[in-house]
Amino acid sequence: MKPLGYRSVTVLDGFWKQTREKNARISLMNVYRRFEETGRFSALDCVKRDPPPHIFFDSDVAKWLEAAAYLYHDYPDGEIKNIIDKSVNAIAAAQLPNGYYNSYYQVYKKDKIFAERMEHELYCAGHLIEAAVALFEAGLGDKLLLVMRKYADYIHERFYVARDPLFTTCGHPEIELALVRLFECTNERKYLTLAEFFLNERGKKPEYVYPFFDSTYDQSHMPVREQTEAVGHAVRALYLYIAMAEAGRISKDSPLLKAAERLFDNIVNQKMYVTGGTGSNYFGERFTAPYDLPNEYAYAETCSAIALAFFCESLAKAENKAKYHDVFERVLYNNLLAGQSADGKGFFYTNPLETNISHLKFAREVKGYPYQPIVERVEVFDCSCCPPNFIRFVGRIGDCIYGEENDRAYIHQYISSEANIGKLKIKMNSGFPYDGEVKIVAEGTGALGTRVPPWCDKLTCTVNGKSVTPETSDGYLMFEVKGMCEILLNFNMRPRFIYSNENVSQNCGRKAVEYGPLVLCAEGVDNGNNLRNIVIPSTEHAKVCRDGIFSVTIPAERLHTSDALYSYRPPEKEKIELKLIPYFLWANRGETDMQIWFM
Amino acid sequence: MKPLGYRSVTVLDGFWKQTREKNARISLMNVYRRFEETGRFSALDCVKRDPPPHIFFDSDVAKWLEAAAYLYHDYPDGEIKNIIDKSVNAIAAAQLPNGYYNSYYQVYKKDKIFAERMEHELYCAGHLIEAAVALFEAGLGDKLLLVMRKYADYIHERFYVARDPLFTTCGHPEIELALVRLFECTNERKYLTLAEFFLNERGKKPEYVYPFFDSTYDQSHMPVREQTEAVGHAVRALYLYIAMAEAGRISKDSPLLKAAERLFDNIVNQKMYVTGGTGSNYFGERFTAPYDLPNEYAYAETCSAIALAFFCESLAKAENKAKYHDVFERVLYNNLLAGQSADGKGFFYTNPLETNISHLKFAREVKGYPYQPIVERVEVFDCSCCPPNFIRFVGRIGDCIYGEENDRAYIHQYISSEANIGKLKIKMNSGFPYDGEVKIVAEGTGALGTRVPPWCDKLTCTVNGKSVTPETSDGYLMFEVKGMCEILLNFNMRPRFIYSNENVSQNCGRKAVEYGPLVLCAEGVDNGNNLRNIVIPSTEHAKVCRDGIFSVTIPAERLHTSDALYSYRPPEKEKIELKLIPYFLWANRGETDMQIWFM
Repeated sequence: MKPLGYRSVTVLDGFWKQTREKNARISLMNVYRRFEETGRFSALDCVKRDPPPHIFFDSDVAKWLEAAAYLYHDYPDGEIKNIIDKSVNAIAAAQLPNGYYNSYYQVYKKDKIFAERMEHELYCAGHLIEAAVALFEAGLGDKLLLVMRKYADYIHERFYVARDPLFTTCGHPEIELALVRLFECTNERKYLTLAEFFLNERGKKPEYVYPFFDSTYDQSHMPVREQTEAVGHAVRALYLYIAMAEAGRISKDSPLLKAAERLFDNIVNQKMYVTGGTGSNYFGERFTAPYDLPNEYAYAETCSAIALAFFCESLAKAENKAKYHDVFERVLYNNLLAGQSADGKGFFYTNPLETNISHLKFAREVKGYPYQPIVERVEVFDCSCCPPNFIRFVGRIGDCIYGEENDRAYIHQYISSEANIGKLKIKMNSGFPYDGEVKIVAEGTGALGTRVPPWCDKLTCTVNGKSVTPETSDGYLMFEVKGMCEILLNFNMRPRFIYSNENVSQNCGRKAVEYGPLVLCAEGVDNGNNLRNIVIPSTEHAKVCRDGIFSVTIPAERLHTSDALYSYRPPEKEKIELKLIPYFLWANRGETDMQIWFM
Repeated sequence: MKPLGYRSVTVLDGFWKQTREKNARISLMNVYRRFEETGRFSALDCVKRDPPPHIFFDSDVAKWLEAAAYLYHDYPDGEIKNIIDKSVNAIAAAQLPNGYYNSYYQVYKKDKIFAERMEHELYCAGHLIEAAVALFEAGLGDKLLLVMRKYADYIHERFYVARDPLFTTCGHPEIELALVRLFECTNERKYLTLAEFFLNERGKKPEYVYPFFDSTYDQSHMPVREQTEAVGHAVRALYLYIAMAEAGRISKDSPLLKAAERLFDNIVNQKMYVTGGTGSNYFGERFTAPYDLPNEYAYAETCSAIALAFFCESLAKAENKAKYHDVFERVLYNNLLAGQSADGKGFFYTNPLETNISHLKFAREVKGYPYQPIVERVEVFDCSCCPPNFIRFVGRIGDCIYGEENDRAYIHQYISSEANIGKLKIKMNSGFPYDGEVKIVAEGTGALGTRVPPWCDKLTCTVNGKSVTPETSDGYLMFEVKGMCEILLNFNMRPRFIYSNENVSQNCGRKAVEYGPLVLCAEGVDNGNNLRNIVIPSTEHAKVCRDGIFSVTIPAERLHTSDALYSYRPPEKEKIELKLIPYFLWANRGETDMQIWFM
């Protein structure tokens, strides 16, 4: 399946245009300012400073440049352009004659270049390559692309030809997917060869991992083709799996692609939060045991949500299946969107599915207490990978909407937009995520498939005003367009219970409430704290409110006990009206309890 | 209230005689052998060895000596006597001329004597004092008592008179309660004065605490009289509170006693597991936020259960209230007894209320994973405080049964035994903990109060064959005995649900099943793993089985889902027969899931 790139799609008025605009007008410059204050941009010139930059500052800047590239066409801005140019010029000027560039190593640890496997050197290179491709493809010049090709050539020479570095594969995958992308942009086969070399060498022999972790941490515990269970650091894992899917597709390397598909199935069948989050523990930010999905101490990093969404896209390119877009949708409207505050300035690194402020306050007072998530978004982190990653994702949101396979046009995501696919001109107006009505006007001749979201159990459809029951195939409604065709779809969004697998010990006896693609949550600020005691008998009398913040109010019960710590008297039920809001909008009104799974 | 000491009580045939006999005949020598193998006993002679003993080995040996003292009268044994004598002789021979004794400091770190607050020096002294008092009172000689008096005099001289050590109070409370006990044994007031000095100085000024903890860890964050919330390391806290209650009572120091009572109420109203366990987190083995009682990651150290039981006894001595004995009973039959394996050889350090073997297996495979409890008892730990503590507790079980206050005799715990209290001769045969029938034969003249356990909601009573409804006062049934009086009580043990306070987020929507004083649990070995999915609608048709291991079988339901990780279809119910056993008997049949709180 060939997806339609974001540059061929015009996002129209609606939820996503607003979100993209907020990211273009507020978030991008705000993140830039925080990065500038923290020395991330100034480090690019490779002049020695005290304190030195962090080893992964280059990747933060790279993702920012990539985000700027995606947003520039629709939101041109002189200041942004100047920052792009200044940054690219700084990198180009500081690049070593042999092609190497790293604002930390070449300045502070020149003797350790390509010697420290876990220190993100090739990871930074990968993100700079992605930025270079994005700037070039956005028409913002080929200067960084030339710089990064030279660097990639140098990596190829050292790692693939000479094989003289002190490690073979990078401790944080990213270079692999970036090289595939560079190959697709330049058609230079050696980049693909190098990507495949890194993929194939991983796990073949023991390589250095942080001494406090084992080799599952960075997926170097066995050859990637043999891997069947998603393990270790979730972002590392997903970046690796993306590269496997991409290289597997391009090289028609079926075992490699199958391994990626197996890992995807393992994640979505055993290791993914209902929000699309991955990573169940702060220790190693990692996948844990099958079905181990603690809510209060979930890691579910924003970057791993973004990575899982990219992984869905990569797999769909190899073979289009509705399930990839279903998971993409779950990730997108829940864990991923939760990564940013409503005002566009703050970001979450981790995304718990439940908070208990009393536990949090205790942990804050106790020196060295192992872990509590932050429960209000901040503008910058020491390890600030998520903010620019979020903006670049939103910048290229147009990428996920349409695709083409075997002469059939596909609509995967319902985002208001227009585009030409094959012989069809399509204009879509969508109420998603708050309303299930979608109007698609298609002009031309051809087959069109539109995905039926998995939460939709009742669908209405009219074509040119006539009620029809379209054929479905593999999760898509199938239409034949001739001339002008107005398709009205209603996916019948309403509050529905969703249940976890019986093996998810944390959610037994509980259910979450979804509305269309949205997972809903309750906050203490609306409902009082101590949400664990709330029972929702039914969604039957739920009321949807679209004034102000979207919310759903459901008759529910609160279980009350006496003051005793233990009692033989069963709790008594108090009738309440439970107010739920989209999970992605939580934590915008101060510190408060939050919960997704209810009795 | 004056409790009747264990030496005045004969434990008769029944549960506790069996338990005591097992500890005398199996556990005591078994722990000795493990301690001998690990160099704990040989270190007593203070000869330099490599590797050196641990800083708290003296306290392990001291608790073993104390246990031996309590068991010797009923279970005399030449080998045990030899070990006692050899140990006491070694300590006496190695004691420094000034009275100091510590098998670590005087050998390996002589220049740091009384210089390192957190290193358990006075804690070891305290346990040796307790051992000395126990041996003396058991008629096993005054040699260690003389040694420890000399040491206590030296501590008094240095800490109270000269005030020249590098710290004022010990980082691990224990010396305080030991000095009170030494005062009660010797009537030498300066030991009480020194105990009160340590109590009163604690938290008055900042003192050194491990750099990774704050001063709540060892309760030195504020003067003890001002403390209202149980904080920090649970064993440290409870040992301190015991000393507060003891000194408060003896010195009629009402503010000190009230502080101890306040801290007790805080624990039992907010911070105690249903098993009587305390300490909610492995990090600092500590009390956490009010109502924070995680089951799978409970710490609930065996030593802290023992300490809470001692604390109950101390408070009851100051003012007899049924609630102290109620909590004692809860601790005794659940967390405390769980500390030892059925064969008397293995011990638990921590006592989780739930296990999930799949989580555990994952954690074991991952290097450095923060914490998972052990789920099978072992014979010795590096920090092996719990095993001898357990045996000494069982050795003196007679202490907890009877008491006297204002010319009234009291029965607090229903343990088969005989004793004379005031003008009454009492013989009691009790079915506890498996049967609620108790037969008390009292001879003489006087008032007798017998406690009504809090789980008993239906009581039958006959006196000399006649059904009566006795008067109750403050949780006790009141009888007037003249001549020979046979009292038959039936507390109507049966399976009952018990509920947590609504603020215990971990147990919302769940209940435990109790049977008399026993908290019951299910194990995977009987019921299959994945117990979180089990619903118990009612205890109505429960069947009690006394053949072999005591068990209760209850009709229940298991919630099953499809294989999908998330589904819109509610789980389906499968009817099952759930088998429950006493919590204290868990983990005697291999590694398996275990659970107390059910839907």
